[in-house]
Amino acid sequence: MSNAAQTETKAPHHAVIVGGGFGGLYAAKELGKDPNVKVTLIDKRNFHLFQPLLYQVATGGLSPGDISSPLRAVLGRNKNTQVLMAEVKEIDPAGQTVTLPDGKISYDSLIIATGVSHHYFGNDHWSDDAPGLKTVEDALEMRRRIFLAFEAAEKETDPEKHKAWLTFVVVGAGPTGVELAGALAELAHTTLKNDFQTIDPTEAQIILLEGTDRVLPPYAPELSAKAEESLTNLGVTVRTKTLVTHIEDGVVTVRNGEKIEYLPSQTILWAAGIKASPMGKEIALRTGAELDRVGRVMVEPDLSLPNYPNIFVIGDLSNFSHQGDRPLPGVAPVAMQEGRYVANVIKRQVRGNHERSPFEYVDRGSLAVIGRNAAVVDLGFARFAGFPAWLTWVIVHIYFLIEFDNKLLVMLQWGWNYFTRKRGARLITGKEGGFQPFQRSRAEAARVEPKVNPPEAVA
Amino acid sequence: MSNAAQTETKAPHHAVIVGGGFGGLYAAKELGKDPNVKVTLIDKRNFHLFQPLLYQVATGGLSPGDISSPLRAVLGRNKNTQVLMAEVKEIDPAGQTVTLPDGKISYDSLIIATGVSHHYFGNDHWSDDAPGLKTVEDALEMRRRIFLAFEAAEKETDPEKHKAWLTFVVVGAGPTGVELAGALAELAHTTLKNDFQTIDPTEAQIILLEGTDRVLPPYAPELSAKAEESLTNLGVTVRTKTLVTHIEDGVVTVRNGEKIEYLPSQTILWAAGIKASPMGKEIALRTGAELDRVGRVMVEPDLSLPNYPNIFVIGDLSNFSHQGDRPLPGVAPVAMQEGRYVANVIKRQVRGNHERSPFEYVDRGSLAVIGRNAAVVDLGFARFAGFPAWLTWVIVHIYFLIEFDNKLLVMLQWGWNYFTRKRGARLITGKEGGFQPFQRSRAEAARVEPKVNPPEAVA
Repeated sequence: MSNAAQTETKAPHHAVIVGGGFGGLYAAKELGKDPNVKVTLIDKRNFHLFQPLLYQVATGGLSPGDISSPLRAVLGRNKNTQVLMAEVKEIDPAGQTVTLPDGKISYDSLIIATGVSHHYFGNDHWSDDAPGLKTVEDALEMRRRIFLAFEAAEKETDPEKHKAWLTFVVVGAGPTGVELAGALAELAHTTLKNDFQTIDPTEAQIILLEGTDRVLPPYAPELSAKAEESLTNLGVTVRTKTLVTHIEDGVVTVRNGEKIEYLPSQTILWAAGIKASPMGKEIALRTGAELDRVGRVMVEPDLSLPNYPNIFVIGDLSNFSHQGDRPLPGVAPVAMQEGRYVANVIKRQVRGNHERSPFEYVDRGSLAVIGRNAAVVDLGFARFAGFPAWLTWVIVHIYFLIEFDNKLLVMLQWGWNYFTRKRGARLITGKEGGFQPFQRSRAEAARVEPKVNPPEAVA
Repeated sequence: MSNAAQTETKAPHHAVIVGGGFGGLYAAKELGKDPNVKVTLIDKRNFHLFQPLLYQVATGGLSPGDISSPLRAVLGRNKNTQVLMAEVKEIDPAGQTVTLPDGKISYDSLIIATGVSHHYFGNDHWSDDAPGLKTVEDALEMRRRIFLAFEAAEKETDPEKHKAWLTFVVVGAGPTGVELAGALAELAHTTLKNDFQTIDPTEAQIILLEGTDRVLPPYAPELSAKAEESLTNLGVTVRTKTLVTHIEDGVVTVRNGEKIEYLPSQTILWAAGIKASPMGKEIALRTGAELDRVGRVMVEPDLSLPNYPNIFVIGDLSNFSHQGDRPLPGVAPVAMQEGRYVANVIKRQVRGNHERSPFEYVDRGSLAVIGRNAAVVDLGFARFAGFPAWLTWVIVHIYFLIEFDNKLLVMLQWGWNYFTRKRGARLITGKEGGFQPFQRSRAEAARVEPKVNPPEAVA
């Protein structure tokens, strides 16, 4: 699989892209139009995932196929582009190669966009009790737990256990946490309302925990307030300034100031921290690039690495700190713009223009949806909430889903869910059987001191 | 969970249904309209699966959510009906109870409809190499293998292994096998045609193995001939009178008369035998009912068990041999009609009418779809193939999907796939990584004697 042949004079410039998320895909699309460039996109999955809608899969509103698009289908028309399903574990910046399990591929330019995964702040053992939401498998596991909890509650006669099955704790009130909590509230209070005989799903408690003093901390304070209001109206219990100090056996231990509390819940969903994919460390090791606190790679103003102008790191894996007083946020629009920018740098370079004006992110605004008719929008020049925000959210998502083959179908599904308030994809799949509750009751848990109680507790 | 209270005089007749497939669901729907009956539907899954379209999930055309409907959503409006997610392992016909993991439920009438699973004719160790297609998980595993095979072929340089990755063997040419082979051929020859750079997906070989002398053995011979012609036109290699004697390490050993052959393939799909679910044995043990060769329960003309007129066995688990010269086939229409029949027996009985005219299946015809525009239809009075048959197939499926919430969306998805020839749901999910080819090459395999070579080989 060595591409030694391409060192000949006439070989096109070979751009290798690692990762088919928003950053990698948009770079590939932009380069795909250039006949002087050869593109290889490598991803360990065979599909691009529209991650902003992953919470809809977790709550039974959409199927994984609705928010995924096969990379080959998206890039199939670009004759200069090869897609490979593989995991890159090593890069060799001196030899200009990346190593796949079955060989090496040489590159002229390398674009790395392998993203981030969730992070338990040193408490990785919490992950079994409190799964995160980054992959399709994560979403299906959340879906399995959420719907299993209602089924288990329907059969549970012990009042304490019954309550734990109907208590849903979402840790972290960033956009994902807010969207998950909102969708859970709609699920319990609307979709499932009449589906059970023993339990009343509207009695379900959805608790959203946030360590800082407001939900959606990256947004403007007045939007945080609007979002909290919407969440409360939907029936979510919002608890800010509340740190998670321990998770074990179906009990979340939280601290608010000096007050310690134990929240028994059979469904704990993690939407708090992120950490860079392992490729971050590999890059640091091989190029001497610096990493930030969560392992993201510090990049130059042109998104390249110090001393390696032909290696670019983009998307969530990248820490771009040359604009504003904080690194650019890990959201899809940043990754898309970075992908396009780097592709254009390479295209100009192939034509002999080696000038690189620094990357500049054009912030078209922030969005978070809380539920049917409820969202918050920050367009910079305007901030609003409620139905207009929700409509904006829907229109923006239509616009971006236009890149997808199945855009129309997803929007129809969306409309269907909107008008019927039904969620058709609420399958409990994967592990058969289920119903393995966590072992200890709240009473027992309260008697046990948390094993881990870091001075810097999180949420 | 004991329902002792209902022995009071005024308690409604309690019908317990085990299994939410076509049989159980149709019985529940029919009984749901009767205020004098209380219904409990127990299923180990929380959704009804439209199994006839499962092969579309396996080949990336539809998502599991598209062909599933939450049992609670389907039966939610029936206030006399409780749905429980649980697995029934024991029945007590004398005490009139069924045992769940967390308690017993007493019944007045019991309807058992737990269906069948696939069967390897005593070679259960083949199941890892050649998965079957009965559950959502089965379909996703097939999907994973099918799309992984193309990805692996794209990277494989060894010509022999390359060919094995691009060889798909379907064992058994009943309706499922025919539909699978047809969909695979369309996938390779149309959908994926332009998606790869190294391989040409149209070179993929799809081999359909059948032990008898024609495909679709239960159909009329002229339709079998039409179906075989359509399959051949689609590029499927149909091999009848070919028995599978062994499957191991990616090699299918087949026998045609005296000739033994080894077919190396990394993707072997099982669509051959069925066996009754374990509930069959439990019924035989507790009631003395007879089982047939594959473990199905021999039922009386009213679908009840000998000596137990209040226990009914319906659907695929039932062997009804009182009509025609063979047992009724294990297809959805039979199960639906049986479910409705039994529900009506119970409804009449509750009103004091204990007469039971024997069940009579009204055969509205058989259908099998082979691919876009190609199908065979046998309506009894008319048999036809090609586009009219395909259209009939589509219309019949619209009709039955009307029971589903998402009927419109599925048909739209269907239309979309039809006109674009795209299959959007071709995600490789589940186990990450993949690419674990079977170990031995054909050359090696040919040197090894099959460990199992039963005198009665199968396919």
